[in-house]
Amino acid sequence: MDKILPFERKVNYYETDKMGIVHHSNYIRWFEETRIYYLEAAGYPYSRMEDEGIMIPVLSAECNYKNAVTFGETVYITAQVQKFNGFRMEILYTVKGGDGTVKADGMTSHCFVNKDMKLVRTNKEYPGIYKVFTGLCEMSGQQ
Amino acid sequence: MDKILPFERKVNYYETDKMGIVHHSNYIRWFEETRIYYLEAAGYPYSRMEDEGIMIPVLSAECNYKNAVTFGETVYITAQVQKFNGFRMEILYTVKGGDGTVKADGMTSHCFVNKDMKLVRTNKEYPGIYKVFTGLCEMSGQQ
Amino acid sequence: MDKILPFERKVNYYETDKMGIVHHSNYIRWFEETRIYYLEAAGYPYSRMEDEGIMIPVLSAECNYKNAVTFGETVYITAQVQKFNGFRMEILYTVKGGDGTVKADGMTSHCFVNKDMKLVRTNKEYPGIYKVFTGLCEMSGQQ
Amino acid sequence: MDKILPFERKVNYYETDKMGIVHHSNYIRWFEETRIYYLEAAGYPYSRMEDEGIMIPVLSAECNYKNAVTFGETVYITAQVQKFNGFRMEILYTVKGGDGTVKADGMTSHCFVNKDMKLVRTNKEYPGIYKVFTGLCEMSGQQ
Repeated sequence: MDKILPFERKVNYYETDKMGIVHHSNYIRWFEETRIYYLEAAGYPYSRMEDEGIMIPVLSAECNYKNAVTFGETVYITAQVQKFNGFRMEILYTVKGGDGTVKADGMTSHCFVNKDMKLVRTNKEYPGIYKVFTGLCEMSGQQ
Repeated sequence: MDKILPFERKVNYYETDKMGIVHHSNYIRWFEETRIYYLEAAGYPYSRMEDEGIMIPVLSAECNYKNAVTFGETVYITAQVQKFNGFRMEILYTVKGGDGTVKADGMTSHCFVNKDMKLVRTNKEYPGIYKVFTGLCEMSGQQ
Repeated sequence: MDKILPFERKVNYYETDKMGIVHHSNYIRWFEETRIYYLEAAGYPYSRMEDEGIMIPVLSAECNYKNAVTFGETVYITAQVQKFNGFRMEILYTVKGGDGTVKADGMTSHCFVNKDMKLVRTNKEYPGIYKVFTGLCEMSGQQ
Repeated sequence: MDKILPFERKVNYYETDKMGIVHHSNYIRWFEETRIYYLEAAGYPYSRMEDEGIMIPVLSAECNYKNAVTFGETVYITAQVQKFNGFRMEILYTVKGGDGTVKADGMTSHCFVNKDMKLVRTNKEYPGIYKVFTGLCEMSGQQ
């Protein structure tokens, strides 16, 4: 799998709050956008996974805020898939400004479920999905 | 049907933007909260309608912003059901501050659909739902 | 001023609701993103206007929903500046899907204020800002 | 300080996503609502702190999702102030359903800053604010 460029994202005005900076809850949404961007870049869009009956709910999410982000800025977010074993994984995120300053980092953990919300072992039942996450996981190791 | 008190709503910090006031998009969400509050007050919660297979999508929405709302304020929102004919309706909203100042007014229009997104005539198929909206419509006329 | 391409926008997962479609309130946010995109494309970013002390609050907003938008779709949004007279204007929006289907249209109206929230006549006080909106207004006439 | 009842919060329709459950990002917003509710219950609203020039930005936030929350539900959220030393603190949250089921728990960490975003030691400069957080911290120990 080719290296994936960071997810580039302009700040929206409605994402700011009265402190004049991006509200902290939006980073959790940016992490989701970043996951979805990486899956599309890896050739397996999340909408296609859902069409095939697989969802990847969030088991936990965290974010550490280092430097405020303001309207007018563009951020660059990388995701690294970790500890993927076919039915669980963690994803690490780093949010950087245009000058390379780290704005925030974070982590989400996930499982894989079908439409009945039953846990799915992708290595047995969904080899295509297993392959794309294995590829993302290996790519993270190389970074 | 008894008169329904206005929907009372504190402003959330995350609803403000860098102008220091509530972002205009949130009023459209407040209108939704107000509709749902009125239905519950009228004895027929929207979650029950959905369980029975009826959804009330928004066909159009508009809001006129008169005076800014800031964090720390509580707003009081009234809804008036208009032009309900069993399968279409309009709802008018007025957002007031604690001192009675009008902050905004607006309107949404709706239809009634089933789970297949087919239009539903509630007067024939869902008399309980027809009755609650007829009641809300009559109440509006009395205000 | 050169023609500005429509604003291209992927749907975010967190913008959907339990009906499985984009929640109607998000279109109002997309309109804001579109305004800001057009200003940047016209060479005068909104963040620069704010730095110069000018804000363009929303006086009214409306949206007519024609066809649902779902996760996985990309929408293309055009904005047309109308009735700009130096201190007031209207902007019309059309949201289209990838196949050209109209998903929604809408309108926002605006005034121009300074940091004290006083109305500003841009033609006298801010000729650079006046020029960019005049250009956008003329471009709309040509479309 | 009297015991503070959990923060009671209805789920909003616009907080759901296409999985049919509350989107995970909203819990971070609920935590903020809960903080603000506790401060008001403790007699020192956050809007008053801001008026006095103090802000309490979020340094980190995390949430562990245990059981999905759906539209129609009401959640009850408790906050426990921990490790408050005058200029830093942590707050733990538990989100429960109406039947007592734990839906999620989480944590946010904070510092105290003035309008210039300089760190503030509340014990020296803002004894009223110091007192309210000391009270909340002691209350947590008693729970």
